[in-house]
Amino acid sequence: MPSVDKIVVVYSGGMDSTTLLYHLIDAGHPVKAISIHYGQRHACELEAAAAICQTLDVEHRSVDLTAIVPLLGNNSLSSRKTAVPEGHYQEESMKLTVVPNRNMLFLSVAIAWAVSLRYDAIAYGAHSGDHAIYPDCRPEFAEAMDRAAQLCDWRSIRLLRPFVHLDKGDIAQRGAELGVPFEQTWTCYQGGPVHCGRCGACCERIEAFAQHGIADPTQYASS
Amino acid sequence: MPSVDKIVVVYSGGMDSTTLLYHLIDAGHPVKAISIHYGQRHACELEAAAAICQTLDVEHRSVDLTAIVPLLGNNSLSSRKTAVPEGHYQEESMKLTVVPNRNMLFLSVAIAWAVSLRYDAIAYGAHSGDHAIYPDCRPEFAEAMDRAAQLCDWRSIRLLRPFVHLDKGDIAQRGAELGVPFEQTWTCYQGGPVHCGRCGACCERIEAFAQHGIADPTQYASS
Repeated sequence: MPSVDKIVVVYSGGMDSTTLLYHLIDAGHPVKAISIHYGQRHACELEAAAAICQTLDVEHRSVDLTAIVPLLGNNSLSSRKTAVPEGHYQEESMKLTVVPNRNMLFLSVAIAWAVSLRYDAIAYGAHSGDHAIYPDCRPEFAEAMDRAAQLCDWRSIRLLRPFVHLDKGDIAQRGAELGVPFEQTWTCYQGGPVHCGRCGACCERIEAFAQHGIADPTQYASS
Repeated sequence: MPSVDKIVVVYSGGMDSTTLLYHLIDAGHPVKAISIHYGQRHACELEAAAAICQTLDVEHRSVDLTAIVPLLGNNSLSSRKTAVPEGHYQEESMKLTVVPNRNMLFLSVAIAWAVSLRYDAIAYGAHSGDHAIYPDCRPEFAEAMDRAAQLCDWRSIRLLRPFVHLDKGDIAQRGAELGVPFEQTWTCYQGGPVHCGRCGACCERIEAFAQHGIADPTQYASS
């Protein structure tokens, strides 16, 4: 990781980015957190993010980008016309969860805030299990964005992915070490009153806790 | 320029991007145009953009990103607290017109639309006179964003800057050849009822027409 001090965390309120937030605070970095509302069904993740930041006394901004939704076509996360597919990410149906250029949009907003704050870097919770269906989870994409971030201002901003060599099970283990309140984090794509336990995101969450035998405090609709 | 067919144009309603739009249509490309409302004082440029697209029968989207303004600090274009400086870009005071990470934000939105439309490229009106005070006008920045755009989806999106080797005077000349309705375009940073004739953007507009002796149809407050 490059030598940086102050970091803006791209923060969804899920288990990966919550663990990242705890991890960076534990390492002594001053942090601020930013969440994006892009019309996702599971906007309850933003409430989880706000509540956890309040507990941590971390400044949190939630930015409303719903004006871009009409540009994003027919994906199942921001369009109400398309159902969220169930099952694992390997399946063809999961392509419906691809939101066009989502990562570049989110990173651009976080970088703008970092430039304005004169912070050194932004960090996000990319991990080794990010799925082959998401083109903007490729390492080459992140490297190009890191280069652009270094050039977008006279002060260089770095793009950090501290968990890129961990899988989701490893992140759960790291979170458990750090005392992350997993019961407050939100993962499910459906955005119902409790986690559905059946969408791709829930399947992975369940497996992540199971991998190293960590207790899963989540209430699932199907359990 | 890479071989591409359909192009989304990042369209401000100014003389450079209007000439770009005419230039790409003249070259036979199917085009759509996108403008961004980021709280700029001179939001009247968006009305100019919409009116010109209507004349050309080009689909035009105006995207409201004003939710990001609180992240952008104290620049003179999106903050009402800071006055627009007068005079040439060479001056120190022009640094107030730097909007943090503006180009990455705009390009990200245009690229998202291009991915969704299955278009081949986006184009914007970068030119050789883009100023040393704007870090995100550096060619290396544009090259990094072009690389990221090629990787953000399984289909490659290209980032085109067809006027990058022209200066603003050359663009005025090209626009005159193409019959661009310059009187409908908007440049002034002040956003008053007519162009102020004194801000950096107006100074450049005046000089661009003068460079090759092209008639300037603009009404300036100070003339």
